Amino acid sequence: MSKIYPDDSSVNDILKEVLQRIKPDENMRKRLIVIYETIRDVIQQCLELNGLMNFEISLQGSVAKDTFLSNEADLDVFILFSPNNYSTEWINKEFVNITTKCLQNQGYNTIVKYAAHPYVTTHIDNIEVDVVPAFLIESPKNIISAVDRTPFHTQYVKTKLCEKCKDDVRLLKAFLKAWDLYGAEIRVQGFSGYLVELLIIKYGSFLNVLKASQSWRAYKTCIEVEEFYGDEKACRKRFKKDVLVVVDPVDFNRNAAAALSIKSYAYFKMLARLFLEKPAKEFFELGFEPSVSVNDVAKIIEERQKISDSCILALFFSVINRSPDVVWGQLKRVQRVLKNVLEKYGYRGMYIDSWVNDEMSKALTVVELLNCSGYELRKGPPAYSNESINFLMKNLDAVIGPWIDEKGSIMCIRKRKHDPVGILSKIVGTAMYTAVKLEEVKKITSVSDIQLINDPKFIIWFKKFLQRKHFDKIARILTK
Amino acid sequence: MSKIYPDDSSVNDILKEVLQRIKPDENMRKRLIVIYETIRDVIQQCLELNGLMNFEISLQGSVAKDTFLSNEADLDVFILFSPNNYSTEWINKEFVNITTKCLQNQGYNTIVKYAAHPYVTTHIDNIEVDVVPAFLIESPKNIISAVDRTPFHTQYVKTKLCEKCKDDVRLLKAFLKAWDLYGAEIRVQGFSGYLVELLIIKYGSFLNVLKASQSWRAYKTCIEVEEFYGDEKACRKRFKKDVLVVVDPVDFNRNAAAALSIKSYAYFKMLARLFLEKPAKEFFELGFEPSVSVNDVAKIIEERQKISDSCILALFFSVINRSPDVVWGQLKRVQRVLKNVLEKYGYRGMYIDSWVNDEMSKALTVVELLNCSGYELRKGPPAYSNESINFLMKNLDAVIGPWIDEKGSIMCIRKRKHDPVGILSKIVGTAMYTAVKLEEVKKITSVSDIQLINDPKFIIWFKKFLQRKHFDKIARILTK
Repeated sequence: MSKIYPDDSSVNDILKEVLQRIKPDENMRKRLIVIYETIRDVIQQCLELNGLMNFEISLQGSVAKDTFLSNEADLDVFILFSPNNYSTEWINKEFVNITTKCLQNQGYNTIVKYAAHPYVTTHIDNIEVDVVPAFLIESPKNIISAVDRTPFHTQYVKTKLCEKCKDDVRLLKAFLKAWDLYGAEIRVQGFSGYLVELLIIKYGSFLNVLKASQSWRAYKTCIEVEEFYGDEKACRKRFKKDVLVVVDPVDFNRNAAAALSIKSYAYFKMLARLFLEKPAKEFFELGFEPSVSVNDVAKIIEERQKISDSCILALFFSVINRSPDVVWGQLKRVQRVLKNVLEKYGYRGMYIDSWVNDEMSKALTVVELLNCSGYELRKGPPAYSNESINFLMKNLDAVIGPWIDEKGSIMCIRKRKHDPVGILSKIVGTAMYTAVKLEEVKKITSVSDIQLINDPKFIIWFKKFLQRKHFDKIARILTK
Repeated sequence: MSKIYPDDSSVNDILKEVLQRIKPDENMRKRLIVIYETIRDVIQQCLELNGLMNFEISLQGSVAKDTFLSNEADLDVFILFSPNNYSTEWINKEFVNITTKCLQNQGYNTIVKYAAHPYVTTHIDNIEVDVVPAFLIESPKNIISAVDRTPFHTQYVKTKLCEKCKDDVRLLKAFLKAWDLYGAEIRVQGFSGYLVELLIIKYGSFLNVLKASQSWRAYKTCIEVEEFYGDEKACRKRFKKDVLVVVDPVDFNRNAAAALSIKSYAYFKMLARLFLEKPAKEFFELGFEPSVSVNDVAKIIEERQKISDSCILALFFSVINRSPDVVWGQLKRVQRVLKNVLEKYGYRGMYIDSWVNDEMSKALTVVELLNCSGYELRKGPPAYSNESINFLMKNLDAVIGPWIDEKGSIMCIRKRKHDPVGILSKIVGTAMYTAVKLEEVKKITSVSDIQLINDPKFIIWFKKFLQRKHFDKIARILTK
């Protein structure tokens, strides 16, 4: 590694201090193992009493691999069923019923959650315990459900990750968490725990991952932990569309970084460079979220309207399907569609984001449009397409144009005649979304509008939405 | 051809009427031949007196092919030299001197013009005569200069173009001229005369070309007049970047439509469809250009500033190299660079175009920016690139942001602190342009600013620039 950054020793104190905060102590580890053994025995007995056979219970996830953070200790208890004796339908329909009854009979409260298929969650001694059914298979090539791969991942990491490396996994996880880049779920589109572990196995330490990331190239880099493709080109050919490829050593046809978005990739690479240039413990800290008053937010909106003629529009959804990945998948689609359509109406510099409450019952997509009144640049279809004449005819009365631009599209500038609330209602109203249902579209101007969502976490989120000061923490570090 | 358009017979009267206007009569043809024979004999004698041998004089161009329009009759007189006896250097240096002297001795006024190499222009009886040197070669594969191909083109068209087809060539040329799509030069990036002839040879008639154009697909279509590639895919593989491919039957490695821009292509395809749906003779008419007063234009600018907070900025150039393709090539580059840089400064809906006076001594690039004061959306580099931190640091004090957008770029919104005149001066001032020299950058607000270019043609052009009503003619046809 060429030495372009300050000496590592200046960083080590910081990392040590962070590690002290995030590394669970021996008592915590022991406590978790006791909890696991308790729940294991309960389930084992109960399932047997229900006449089930041919299953194995095992501990998976970050506790099994000893890579968990002190504040995120939850237990992933897998029940592995033989695919010869159990079907996917059985798992989807019966497993939850049987396990729920079992646990409830023993006095545990349970919730059903849904990932690839339903699973059961309970809490023991303030620790979340997820009881996840999967198939016991011989090779990752034969997986039936995505979770079937997990035991192979656990096994691989346990074998390959050196003792000291576990701390480096923790550091990288904490670093990613502080910037909301940790997790492969659709809301985050970031780095999964397994991906973090693979990166540490590959590069040896937290700092080495950050350094190595500086030579990654978007859509070009392929990282192999175990040699399989050998040649970067051959590997990239297999995974053409992914911003970063980290070949899963357990299944060479899988990219462990497939969920990573270009946004998260870019964010990480930039943060890594900032940290290497100016290391600070703030990089690992979650942003402090002071309570925000509704009036604060109303004041920002009022000011914004003055300086940039801006509109804040909100789409209120009720949530039908409470699976986070499904809901977030559809909200992200709403955002994309809105952005594209609004750009055709000449809006730019718009900002769109969504918020879902903890109960996964209400969702909100908020849009800020700049230069909301006045004139709009309208971009029509390419003049060579069949739709061009329709657009031309509709805009013959434009203030300026219609004309054909250098790329062959028809353009014109006209007085805005569409109310943005109307545009949004129409776009989202006509599309089919199965997980979220549009209830209302509203221009947010007053305190009473903001209070429509009566949730302090929303107010905090909304203030952040308006200010978009993603790098405030950095600014403080860099300017001190 | 599937019949999706009104019956051709309804169109024929219109085409007949247009043809009457644009088709030269027999007298004109005879007059041109007499002029050609005169100049041919003058040059033949004179060159021989100067001791030159091994050359052939021949008539090329649209008069030779009988495809010229009555208002654009000019003669292309080619002097073909044997490459065994003459060099490119000799042609560039000596030819002009000798021919100029010859013609001047015989009482002709001459001008030197420059295309691929210099040539001599004179006027006889109000007809422009271009005397162009080229090499006499055996096959188009061996061409030394691009004009060497011309005799092969003339020969090919003469052999292949049916008598009635010549009128169809004229119709298509007139149609293209009316919309400034005729010509392969950089200013136009449209259809050359030869390309028009090939299209008529391929499709048989003016109407058939328009109809065929409706099934062309940008960057996909390959038209072969003579079978060579046979397969469209193989052909497109050879010409990857061209919006339309019309294989030159005289040289299969050449695309006769290579100069066509996506803008001109789109324009033509749309006009063709409009004409097929609503044929009218106005499609063939040059826009009527009423004289425009400076006050008219000043009024438009004033109003524009009110409705869209717009700025009109002008870059004044003096022209050093008077070759139109070189000047226009550099002006187009100026336009592209300005557009890219201004977009980074958050300007959008901008419109840029250039004007050069008839004498090719002064050039002007004009930019209209909407929302010129107030706030700017600034788009920085991708966060994964090395420049990102620099951008981040500079914009930590932005009003909104900096944040990272969905595509990974850093964005922010800030009060405009750059004067657009300053931005333009800097961008264009630091770049190297050899054919044009930046004299001044000015915000155009008053009558006196507009009068800086004291040319009635400029005022007409400037009004069109501001209104961009490219389809006014169409609007009149469609709404009547």
